[in-house]
Amino acid sequence: MLGNFTFSIPTRVHFGDKALDSLKDELARFGETVLLTYGGGSIKKTGLYDRIVGILTDAGKEIVELPGVMPNPTADKLREGAKLAREVSADLILAVGGGSVIDYSKAVSVSAWCDEDPWDKYYLRMEDPDNKIIPVGSVLTMVGTGSEMNGGAVITNPEQKLKIGHVFGDEVFPKFSILDPVLTFTVPERQMVAGIFDMFNHITEQYFSGDDDNTSDYLAEGLMRNVIVSGRHAVKDPENYEARSNLMWDASLALNTLIALGKSTDWEVHMIGQAVGALTDATHGLTLAAVAPAYYRLIMPFGLERFKRFAEHVWDVDPAGKTDKEVAEEGIRRMEEWMQEIGVAKNLTELGVTEDMLDDIVKGTFIMEGGYHVLTKDEILDVLKASM
Amino acid sequence: MLGNFTFSIPTRVHFGDKALDSLKDELARFGETVLLTYGGGSIKKTGLYDRIVGILTDAGKEIVELPGVMPNPTADKLREGAKLAREVSADLILAVGGGSVIDYSKAVSVSAWCDEDPWDKYYLRMEDPDNKIIPVGSVLTMVGTGSEMNGGAVITNPEQKLKIGHVFGDEVFPKFSILDPVLTFTVPERQMVAGIFDMFNHITEQYFSGDDDNTSDYLAEGLMRNVIVSGRHAVKDPENYEARSNLMWDASLALNTLIALGKSTDWEVHMIGQAVGALTDATHGLTLAAVAPAYYRLIMPFGLERFKRFAEHVWDVDPAGKTDKEVAEEGIRRMEEWMQEIGVAKNLTELGVTEDMLDDIVKGTFIMEGGYHVLTKDEILDVLKASM
Repeated sequence: MLGNFTFSIPTRVHFGDKALDSLKDELARFGETVLLTYGGGSIKKTGLYDRIVGILTDAGKEIVELPGVMPNPTADKLREGAKLAREVSADLILAVGGGSVIDYSKAVSVSAWCDEDPWDKYYLRMEDPDNKIIPVGSVLTMVGTGSEMNGGAVITNPEQKLKIGHVFGDEVFPKFSILDPVLTFTVPERQMVAGIFDMFNHITEQYFSGDDDNTSDYLAEGLMRNVIVSGRHAVKDPENYEARSNLMWDASLALNTLIALGKSTDWEVHMIGQAVGALTDATHGLTLAAVAPAYYRLIMPFGLERFKRFAEHVWDVDPAGKTDKEVAEEGIRRMEEWMQEIGVAKNLTELGVTEDMLDDIVKGTFIMEGGYHVLTKDEILDVLKASM
Repeated sequence: MLGNFTFSIPTRVHFGDKALDSLKDELARFGETVLLTYGGGSIKKTGLYDRIVGILTDAGKEIVELPGVMPNPTADKLREGAKLAREVSADLILAVGGGSVIDYSKAVSVSAWCDEDPWDKYYLRMEDPDNKIIPVGSVLTMVGTGSEMNGGAVITNPEQKLKIGHVFGDEVFPKFSILDPVLTFTVPERQMVAGIFDMFNHITEQYFSGDDDNTSDYLAEGLMRNVIVSGRHAVKDPENYEARSNLMWDASLALNTLIALGKSTDWEVHMIGQAVGALTDATHGLTLAAVAPAYYRLIMPFGLERFKRFAEHVWDVDPAGKTDKEVAEEGIRRMEEWMQEIGVAKNLTELGVTEDMLDDIVKGTFIMEGGYHVLTKDEILDVLKASM
């Protein structure tokens, strides 16, 4: 049954190879001081930095730079950014980069005017913001997380060995996001395929929940089919505009609440993957890819009907002459073949996980209750061991 | 290729069997004077009118009533509503009803503070609003048009024998819409199935355009599959909540711009159907159902690949041993069987069309250029004759 929900997506998306032309009009809606957040400087190499600074300057903005956002943004970096945003009284935070930079910018947006420690308030205590929120806009350069069109913001605390995602409400969604597929052409293949699996897993995390038959499930199946086809094309030819543009839009739709509407959703793969990320600093999408097959094999008996449907509707498995279990297993097998094909099938060992980390990963894994089976600590360990 | 687009859906949707509980909070965002628009009074029989008036009264609103919105709202009725809305300086127009009432309310919202004749400005000249727009909210009671989540507003001018839809921008979208599937249970089956075909045709109008392979196409296929399944269930048991809730949400997603993003879109079936509606006052969805099969058979050779894909992806036609044309034709045949099954397959004669009206219908049909074939006047006549 399609459960009760509220749909509200306040992000305006400008999409396509002319999308950056819209930045000027968007900037006009905000005040003078723009906090410009970005990562390690790859946007300087590609020339995007100069283009953005040019547009900001032409628009008469005062630019305050906040570079050096790392792939897994830390609580300390969050504190630094929040302090700066408050000091300069930023009117807009403009995030230029991938999911890490945008996640980080949203975390800063709720933290700048917060009088408590933001890690404690928003991550350990998971509270909602009750202070002024600075508006965020984004120019996306790397595809996968969907951060450009949702309220999610993952922050890592290396001292506490925790990587936690807070999913804020629609007041924290970026006010606008600029999505130009051409800006993603320069992303290294390794990161592109990690993003492809990240978005695919966002869809399965929502699809593998509930025993209903509703609109969100059918949309999820359509999105998965497109990610599979477009992923194949993108790996063969990273400058295939059709494939890259489909993937860019798929990623946004995979995690902008649309396909979660009316569903309980699972997210256990992300919980395990984030616990791995907290200890290894491994690329997010690869941590998901490493543990997803073992996790889905473990929970398959508890949601057999849905795994059978996944096999038939998403992977075109012919059920004739097969038991439900055989059909379901064939679906997971085809998913793994596709993961091999796009080059995202790595195990935890390859990501730097060693046996002595496993207990800490288990400890750092949040246990979710929306999926087909609530894991025990022992089962998390089983999944990890099967993924080494 | 996924063409360039801007995505912006400012409507907040409250969905489910408790959705009306959200009306109070929504009302708090607007001023005191609420123009309450509704149709022929069926909401009084069902008790919905009393519930709404109770909520408005509790919220301290001053209610100005604007009842009597007809199934095909007329230009004269629009003028009447615009005058009233301006006289009382309405802060919000609350539309309670189906697509006609919501369409009408949006047309009033842009017309109240317009100093020209709204039919001339917005329909004959198709201009954009450049005056104050009164916000609209909706409580939906009949499913199909998708008006609850878009900027479309169809108005009929019986004297001029014209029924024209103006698709306004996101500033005209309802600010909020209350979607409670239970409120649709009392809709007569004849109107329910007309709505089901209306939403299905909204999807095909967008799907049958372009030769690309993009996200919007995959989402459209998922939506169509859900409409087909849910439509069957709803006809067997109109109080099947899962089916009715799926259909309610499908209808909104079918026409809220989502599956049109990056596509040229066609809309020729709607143009012919609206021309039929201008002369007969027939139910909108039935006019579409009457002409759609003949229209799609006519354009099939020009978009054969897409019609083949429609057959395979939406109707599960097995292509083995068949020519592309045979596969494509089998898809249309299955669509017709489904239309028979849900009881929406009527011809134009049954809708009151007589031979002597055909010339006027051809004259009143706008010719669209986004589909697989641009019709000639003779071809429109052929479609009409084949649909009698």
